[in-house]
Amino acid sequence: MEERTLKEITPPSVDFSQWYLDVVLKAELADYGPVKGCMVIRPYGYAIWENLQAETDRRIKALGHKNAYFPLLIPKSFLQKEADHVKGFAPECAWVTIGGGEELEEPLAIRPTSEAMICSMYAKWVKSWRDLPVLLNQWCNVLRWEKVTRPFLRTTEFLWQEGHTLHATADEAQKETLSILDMYREVAEDVLAMPVHFGPKSESEKFAGASMTYAIEALMGDGKALQAGTSHNLGQHFAKAYGIEYVDQNQQLVMPWSTSWGVSTRLIGGMIMTHGDDRGLVIPPKVAPYQVVIVPIPPRKGDWNEAVLPKARALMAELTAAGIRVHLDDRDNHQMGFKYADWEMRGVPLRMELGPKDIEKDSCVLVRRDTREKEFVPLAGLADSVKARLDAIQKNLLEKARKFREENTSEPANYDAFKEVMATKRGFLLAGMCPSADCEAKIKEETKATVRCFPLLRDEARPCIRCGSAGKLAYFAQAY
Amino acid sequence: MEERTLKEITPPSVDFSQWYLDVVLKAELADYGPVKGCMVIRPYGYAIWENLQAETDRRIKALGHKNAYFPLLIPKSFLQKEADHVKGFAPECAWVTIGGGEELEEPLAIRPTSEAMICSMYAKWVKSWRDLPVLLNQWCNVLRWEKVTRPFLRTTEFLWQEGHTLHATADEAQKETLSILDMYREVAEDVLAMPVHFGPKSESEKFAGASMTYAIEALMGDGKALQAGTSHNLGQHFAKAYGIEYVDQNQQLVMPWSTSWGVSTRLIGGMIMTHGDDRGLVIPPKVAPYQVVIVPIPPRKGDWNEAVLPKARALMAELTAAGIRVHLDDRDNHQMGFKYADWEMRGVPLRMELGPKDIEKDSCVLVRRDTREKEFVPLAGLADSVKARLDAIQKNLLEKARKFREENTSEPANYDAFKEVMATKRGFLLAGMCPSADCEAKIKEETKATVRCFPLLRDEARPCIRCGSAGKLAYFAQAY
Repeated sequence: MEERTLKEITPPSVDFSQWYLDVVLKAELADYGPVKGCMVIRPYGYAIWENLQAETDRRIKALGHKNAYFPLLIPKSFLQKEADHVKGFAPECAWVTIGGGEELEEPLAIRPTSEAMICSMYAKWVKSWRDLPVLLNQWCNVLRWEKVTRPFLRTTEFLWQEGHTLHATADEAQKETLSILDMYREVAEDVLAMPVHFGPKSESEKFAGASMTYAIEALMGDGKALQAGTSHNLGQHFAKAYGIEYVDQNQQLVMPWSTSWGVSTRLIGGMIMTHGDDRGLVIPPKVAPYQVVIVPIPPRKGDWNEAVLPKARALMAELTAAGIRVHLDDRDNHQMGFKYADWEMRGVPLRMELGPKDIEKDSCVLVRRDTREKEFVPLAGLADSVKARLDAIQKNLLEKARKFREENTSEPANYDAFKEVMATKRGFLLAGMCPSADCEAKIKEETKATVRCFPLLRDEARPCIRCGSAGKLAYFAQAY
Repeated sequence: MEERTLKEITPPSVDFSQWYLDVVLKAELADYGPVKGCMVIRPYGYAIWENLQAETDRRIKALGHKNAYFPLLIPKSFLQKEADHVKGFAPECAWVTIGGGEELEEPLAIRPTSEAMICSMYAKWVKSWRDLPVLLNQWCNVLRWEKVTRPFLRTTEFLWQEGHTLHATADEAQKETLSILDMYREVAEDVLAMPVHFGPKSESEKFAGASMTYAIEALMGDGKALQAGTSHNLGQHFAKAYGIEYVDQNQQLVMPWSTSWGVSTRLIGGMIMTHGDDRGLVIPPKVAPYQVVIVPIPPRKGDWNEAVLPKARALMAELTAAGIRVHLDDRDNHQMGFKYADWEMRGVPLRMELGPKDIEKDSCVLVRRDTREKEFVPLAGLADSVKARLDAIQKNLLEKARKFREENTSEPANYDAFKEVMATKRGFLLAGMCPSADCEAKIKEETKATVRCFPLLRDEARPCIRCGSAGKLAYFAQAY
């Protein structure tokens, strides 16, 4: 049975991309919907999103932001007010042209992002310095018409949060941008056990309309990088474009500084590709829909309804009461071997095996998904034993991912070495990048690698790896 | 200051409809967006939604349902599969005709509801009796092109949850339909303190494609009813239309029975019109963004930063730690009178006044929004005192609303009496209704009243109030 399940999943070493799709579909995280690029997030995948959302929302609110909701549809004329913004997003828009049976006078875009909508409301609301800072966030769906899509990683419709803030000074806006970047780093590392590099993007990769874009960048199992969250300092571009002005403490009419920032369901794709293995998913305990699955072992003779299930249910209740997310697999049409492989494939952090003999000995077997270690554990104090192991798994996953990233990060001596790495094992390369967009484009052409970010905490001068002219140290990688 | 705030709100007795809009806008629950009928839900309104959503989501999950997410865009051909359904919803659809810069081969509807999308996925997923029941729910935005809109009550885009279930038998589907109806009744009454009548709708008011629609119906302050939630037994109509079939325990290919049900941001409109008064909003404690507002009273001489604010902050921390949602109004540009009126208008259940003299006496003043009763309360054990009062307010709001409803419910002796009530004070009328859709339409034409529901717990024969032929007892009202 175990072998059958394994056979259904392409090994990541053979075809990482196919392995990813196999895992997403077999573990029932998502499915393809009838419109190209629009996925269905199934309950098991959505439960991960709910946990991730709760962890992120708590942090967003702790930083003083409030949630609101802005309309889905944006009039064409509103989108056009910021020149760079419309240039970046208009080609990706889906347009509503008919409503209530009639052709609309003005086409309406389904939001690809909400700067245009939110800034036009801010223009109406903000009048005085007392109205600042404005610190709002919304959780919603957005839509960007994509040619090549992959569940979670790049979908036409996706779910995200988008924060939009206004500040009295450039300095405050910059502080906000970086404070959010750090919050995203924390969510990635402490919640998803996904280590990230972070820092500003190059000119060519920044958000359409931003002064500066910062990103968190993670390394996937195939040596490619994933941009996992972005925080934009928008300067006064949007305030200017949308006419946001207020009276400051000196009675002067001035413009505020704004930021915007978002993370999306893409994070789930990052989590899958950071931790998954030959057996399927590995979900960090903090976001796992089920942290523990109880697999009851039937007696050789007699009825498991008498011999095992009552105790299994009692233990489930005990663990649930302790705040642990538990599932009891009491399916009677599958063998244990099938169930073990099934839950491993679904990435449940801890499996508990419980049979009549275990119950006699007041103990159970716990098996870790990350190490596959098997332990006999007394039933007395079970909740604490489980919690300790969940913490250990969470920690181990981050350490393992960090180690993988370190093994796959290097500083190439020259451009030939750079090209060699990108043609073979990939990973992150630390190297100099000059300010020329042309040189950056050439590197992409020649190696498929781009600047993922300039390390925020290591702002160093370094000659460009390709042209040798003055530049700055940057992380390069091929990216999703 | 109090008078100024009062002046800004039209008294409900003068113009209920204008009072409603004044309250929604002044209390900053919502604002008009740039697209007609699409409102912006501002942070204060959205916080009510978050609380209501948490209470509802918890109950949906306790009944065994899981959350998922299905795509926003539905191909035209999918919507057309159920004949009644498309007839009901197609005229209200917004159509995407252009995506990624190109005309689409098939127009895509923005979901007005998701039966078409979800049933087509169910057709793919459900194969065996072991896959049943399917109990899914989603929280999302939907769009229905409306001619006349009003914030929360009827908007082109709104937020809601929609449950979609599949069952092996007609009986199970009916049980689900009624169990959800009862859950909605509980949310309305126990969370929003909004008493509801509940039962089946008449043929002419049922959901497009349903076998039977059940609703909860509340009475608003102006004597009009509001349909506050619906639960539909869809029979096998959608299973048939979307080709959902499975192999049952006897190896036969059979069709399941389905239900769907939803409540939306409309509930917030119902809450406003159930409890609000001359002074503005009255928010039930269970959904109030702030359950308590602390208004510090400055000393006659000296600095309130020394005399009052430290104690106010300590008390806020104490109440927050006890799980109470608290706001401290430390604005220094407004007088107390303004603040009192401002928070009354915003419907905060409990106001705490705290001045230097109160602090000396280790006490504070608590003022209830619902009764405006003022009490001196010792600071020792403050969290318990506050909780007891919040419970009392929640209870009183429900009782008050029940009393109002009873005073505005009667059984007219004949059709003339019926017409008289509907032309004057309105409210609910209990009267007989025959099965003729024509007679029902005439009653609407002559009195503006419709059958809101047939009382589920009082299934009685009663001659039709208009034509005298055999009928059933029904609740009539004019409705939003």
